[in-house]
Amino acid sequence: MTFQHEINVTWGDCDPAKIVYTGRIPNFALDAINAFWEHHLDGDGWYQFEMDRKVGTPFVHMSLDFRHPITPRHKLLCEVVPTRLGETSIEFRVIGRQDGKDCFEGRFVNVFTDAIAFKKRTAPDDIRALIEPMIES
Amino acid sequence: MTFQHEINVTWGDCDPAKIVYTGRIPNFALDAINAFWEHHLDGDGWYQFEMDRKVGTPFVHMSLDFRHPITPRHKLLCEVVPTRLGETSIEFRVIGRQDGKDCFEGRFVNVFTDAIAFKKRTAPDDIRALIEPMIES
Amino acid sequence: MTFQHEINVTWGDCDPAKIVYTGRIPNFALDAINAFWEHHLDGDGWYQFEMDRKVGTPFVHMSLDFRHPITPRHKLLCEVVPTRLGETSIEFRVIGRQDGKDCFEGRFVNVFTDAIAFKKRTAPDDIRALIEPMIES
Amino acid sequence: MTFQHEINVTWGDCDPAKIVYTGRIPNFALDAINAFWEHHLDGDGWYQFEMDRKVGTPFVHMSLDFRHPITPRHKLLCEVVPTRLGETSIEFRVIGRQDGKDCFEGRFVNVFTDAIAFKKRTAPDDIRALIEPMIES
Repeated sequence: MTFQHEINVTWGDCDPAKIVYTGRIPNFALDAINAFWEHHLDGDGWYQFEMDRKVGTPFVHMSLDFRHPITPRHKLLCEVVPTRLGETSIEFRVIGRQDGKDCFEGRFVNVFTDAIAFKKRTAPDDIRALIEPMIES
Repeated sequence: MTFQHEINVTWGDCDPAKIVYTGRIPNFALDAINAFWEHHLDGDGWYQFEMDRKVGTPFVHMSLDFRHPITPRHKLLCEVVPTRLGETSIEFRVIGRQDGKDCFEGRFVNVFTDAIAFKKRTAPDDIRALIEPMIES
Repeated sequence: MTFQHEINVTWGDCDPAKIVYTGRIPNFALDAINAFWEHHLDGDGWYQFEMDRKVGTPFVHMSLDFRHPITPRHKLLCEVVPTRLGETSIEFRVIGRQDGKDCFEGRFVNVFTDAIAFKKRTAPDDIRALIEPMIES
Repeated sequence: MTFQHEINVTWGDCDPAKIVYTGRIPNFALDAINAFWEHHLDGDGWYQFEMDRKVGTPFVHMSLDFRHPITPRHKLLCEVVPTRLGETSIEFRVIGRQDGKDCFEGRFVNVFTDAIAFKKRTAPDDIRALIEPMIES
């Protein structure tokens, strides 16, 4: 079962073209990735990673293709799938769908860091154990 | 039963003080008011007001007291209550609570406008009928 | 000479009513207050307060009256004036003007805290010395 | 002379890792592209494109590599260069630099649309004339 995060798109997300402003969309995708972690790690998202686990998750890459305008007419369902787990990094694919249409597809890569030293580190063991069986390409 | 809108506070809402940035909080309250409309009007929020009903809802006032920091540790429950319905305006009280504590309390006033003419108008009849029995002060 | 901060209002700040979204406006005012500090304290804004001076500045109140829609047609000039300096708090008035019209007027109050202990503290001496002669009511 | 847009990075742009939140960075780049248009077209950005010229500019792609954290310690200088002009689309490269370091490099593609019909159209003539001599790859 692929994880989906539902976003309630609103008036304030839209620009005068009456569709969601481009700059909002990466934020939707990031919210979905954070929700993926919260779902699988008992409520722990990036905030708890940093504060409790002292693990930072800075992004090194994102790319998005925008296929269809997003509006407040329908919920936006963001599917999140881990597509690669390296020694010190993880890649996600996020697809945002609305009313049966693919609105955007994105690829997001973050590294893991020691949040105190601000240095790269290997993926934490419980995260590796969780993610490895989920990888899809 | 008072309407409550749940907000999933995240990492990206927080500033280096590790609490939600002040500038995000009015946005949470506005999202809650929009969700109040969606809940009571069959999914219609400000977007549908403007596009389908040709009713604009520009805000003329907001005030907020911030009582307790907000963090991603708990959901933020935003209670929305209409507190006044004038000829051409409506006032809401929004209280944001987290972990049993009042985090903020705000007062928000918008007028109703003809979205085409961008002129003030009276509150639409179905909105008046809906809101009048709910008014609390 | 009253401090003014210029904001370049853009497409992404606007909603489908073709004017700036309400939720953006408190952010403009906060940016202007931060710019006030940067201007008067040799580049130090809230970030440097927290990181270098270990002084936090959490807000306890904001109120805004929205008088005129804001658009990308003109620069938004935000005048920032300190209106009260208490033992542990400061109040600002921010007026946003565009094309000669007052678009919003707001009042913002923050307290000073020890950023490590997250406890209220008195206003730092150099800030008190700077602000006292500027107070207008 | 390559166009540069200066961004005043602030406290509210940063997350608890004390650096700019990933989700803010595409917004900085979009602000820089909009400023590029305003600079070269006598103040006309996307808002004026839509409202006055009836030309829409929806984005179909963005990709960003994040090379160095961004903080409020320095201004962020965003260099904007058009790298391709197709029949109905334009591609920009945006490089964000701070304190002499490349912080991010991004590629952004938007199409041109008839804003009324919401259909693709060719690039407007004055835009084609302006952009063609600037193309760098």
